[in-house]
Amino acid sequence: MKKYCDMTKNELRRELESQLKIYDSYKALSLCLDMSRGKPDINQLNLTENMLGILSSSDQCVLSGGLDCRNYGLLDGIPEAKQLFADILEVPRDNIIVGGNSSLNIMYDTVVRCMLYGSLKSFAPWVKQEGRIKFLCPVPGYDRHFGICASLGIEMINVPMTELGPDMETVERLVSEDPMIKGIWCVPKYSNPMGITYSEETVRRLARLKCAAPDFRIFWDNAYAVHDIYENEGDVLANIFDLAKEAGNPDIVYIFTSTSKISFPGSGISAIAASTDNINHIKSIMTYQTIGCDKLNMLRHILYFKNGEGIRAHMKKHAALLRPKFDMVLGIFESELDKLSIAKWTKPKGGYFISFDITCGSAKRVFELAALCGVTLTKVGDTFPYGKDPNDSNLRIAPSYPPINELETATRVLCCCVKIAALERLLDK
Amino acid sequence: MKKYCDMTKNELRRELESQLKIYDSYKALSLCLDMSRGKPDINQLNLTENMLGILSSSDQCVLSGGLDCRNYGLLDGIPEAKQLFADILEVPRDNIIVGGNSSLNIMYDTVVRCMLYGSLKSFAPWVKQEGRIKFLCPVPGYDRHFGICASLGIEMINVPMTELGPDMETVERLVSEDPMIKGIWCVPKYSNPMGITYSEETVRRLARLKCAAPDFRIFWDNAYAVHDIYENEGDVLANIFDLAKEAGNPDIVYIFTSTSKISFPGSGISAIAASTDNINHIKSIMTYQTIGCDKLNMLRHILYFKNGEGIRAHMKKHAALLRPKFDMVLGIFESELDKLSIAKWTKPKGGYFISFDITCGSAKRVFELAALCGVTLTKVGDTFPYGKDPNDSNLRIAPSYPPINELETATRVLCCCVKIAALERLLDK
Repeated sequence: MKKYCDMTKNELRRELESQLKIYDSYKALSLCLDMSRGKPDINQLNLTENMLGILSSSDQCVLSGGLDCRNYGLLDGIPEAKQLFADILEVPRDNIIVGGNSSLNIMYDTVVRCMLYGSLKSFAPWVKQEGRIKFLCPVPGYDRHFGICASLGIEMINVPMTELGPDMETVERLVSEDPMIKGIWCVPKYSNPMGITYSEETVRRLARLKCAAPDFRIFWDNAYAVHDIYENEGDVLANIFDLAKEAGNPDIVYIFTSTSKISFPGSGISAIAASTDNINHIKSIMTYQTIGCDKLNMLRHILYFKNGEGIRAHMKKHAALLRPKFDMVLGIFESELDKLSIAKWTKPKGGYFISFDITCGSAKRVFELAALCGVTLTKVGDTFPYGKDPNDSNLRIAPSYPPINELETATRVLCCCVKIAALERLLDK
Repeated sequence: MKKYCDMTKNELRRELESQLKIYDSYKALSLCLDMSRGKPDINQLNLTENMLGILSSSDQCVLSGGLDCRNYGLLDGIPEAKQLFADILEVPRDNIIVGGNSSLNIMYDTVVRCMLYGSLKSFAPWVKQEGRIKFLCPVPGYDRHFGICASLGIEMINVPMTELGPDMETVERLVSEDPMIKGIWCVPKYSNPMGITYSEETVRRLARLKCAAPDFRIFWDNAYAVHDIYENEGDVLANIFDLAKEAGNPDIVYIFTSTSKISFPGSGISAIAASTDNINHIKSIMTYQTIGCDKLNMLRHILYFKNGEGIRAHMKKHAALLRPKFDMVLGIFESELDKLSIAKWTKPKGGYFISFDITCGSAKRVFELAALCGVTLTKVGDTFPYGKDPNDSNLRIAPSYPPINELETATRVLCCCVKIAALERLLDK
């Protein structure tokens, strides 16, 4: 097959006709397929079935130190759960607060805390500072991060992602110039949606950032810390906690993670890790918000996983379920699209997403074509602040949730839609 | 025994000597007793042992509507859990959002939401309104309510509690005059710490409040909605949700509750109930904070309690454990103090507290004497905004946590300390 851009108008017309026939044949199937969200599928949920009832007697609820997990108390979580996250994040146990079922909730609350109280080195709460608070947003990125900013009236500034992470020259220049830039959102490992892992150099440069704002924070959403898909070839993320400390910049980073995609998406446990001063500052405010998060659910996780090693072993089971799905999608992209020069996509070694870039000005058209054919994709623009993809070219592919046969059909439909959209644009020129 | 105020100096001196001897004998026991917090005891925690492991298979996690409670989704909680709280609060199911393990957390978040976004009828977020936000605080009241205000810089105005609830004339006058008064904290049933229940007239007057602030809200912490101690003689609380609607004032109230003192204090489920417009407003903001709270824990509660009737039946078991403790404390107060005219106390029909008022200027001294004897009481002042009891006279007694024999000793120590403090003051005059 020729590249589309090398085809004559007549060839393009014939190819469009043939793709529209394929499209119509899919349409006739009345499909209802969803590739929109990074949700574990039912087989992944079943992996932790034995965790459900693992805590069943009162005796199990009392920790070796004597604390009864059923009762009130312990603002920052049970020591064993802190240790579990310490193992995953490679951060000292005392630098961890264990939260409830959602790291999104901790992230939102952390930004809110900065708005109302300031971060450790704020001269005033962010809402009381003259001018509009701004965050750097590496793009494409995670829609819910952008949602938090949008909701709180925080101005978002796009920073391009490279294969090594956010474009650090842009980041360094912007934060050094503007004291109203107070934060940057990062998904540093198997990033959402690109699936890339920040290089060690990128992490080092983030850790030693010189910011005009003394209360600037890196919001380090390490959601996919242990979420390798391919055994023995997972990405390695440099340790920003250690690097920031080494750089004399220990307070610059808030680290977040959860077990949402390890145990249960709605019923996992979450954590924030940060410098001792940050943690003490957070706890001094958090103590007005809650007496403590659900310790029995922490205990279930401890009883089931035991420690970080237990979690890593468990993640191999997730990998075994996800791997064929990623392989299938990537394989179809390669066979259907590789030679046409109309799309580029990432090939992640872990996480939940593939980032898919097509001819500028085509993404919305692809979304629409897919929707009309019963295939739901992540809304175009969701991977950008304000829901606006300036190039209308990025699609986020989430292969995890549909059963593999449905995923195959959905991917083929997607490829067909991508071809049609590209052909339409070429013919329209 | 004579009233202390009728005694001669000599009689007072002899009585003090004799009480000090008793005090010393307690001191020699090296006690370590805690009457400070409203925590369920271990027997109460054991009541729900069978709830711990009630959810043990994947099949149980799928609701009749097909929703898998293990996965992401459902911002406002599973319908069955909404119904459970609808039963308890006597509010329509659709007017409920089910939260995580802590109603304190929902209350804090609700105030924070008002600060950053405003309530439904705010012309601006509370932080952006000119002047300081103020809340009315019926006193004595719940320390953690006051903590939320203190933490957020909200000015607190004391309103005296009567036996019918907050002094409504004061409330009505203040809210009609000052548009910066945006809220009032209420524990309307078995109030913390008085254990009184607001009269129907009080609830009616609150429901039809005319406020200078269009965005004024009643924070209705119905923590003890089903927490009767004495069978067949529990207090009845008028339904503020219905009364506010009838009064054309449906949006004025946010209602909170939880199962913290029904199932497990650290691992229950919580709820907020409010008008449809309020609920939609809250959900429109909450959607940026979380994808949803822990649905598996909601499910455990449903499987165990089934419905409101199940909860009410279960609460009789709590009552059976609490009743002897309340009876014991009240009995000792009566026999040791009733004739001396140096203290007054409430006789609640439910809840977790007894409010104990002694000679003005004595509470701190009693706290200190008790502490020196190994008995921890709630910190004096904690039942007032800013930790300041203007009369230094209120003590909060929490009988639930200690085993009954320890509770007896602690109560006798307390009575002895109250006598000593009263005698010291009378001799000092």
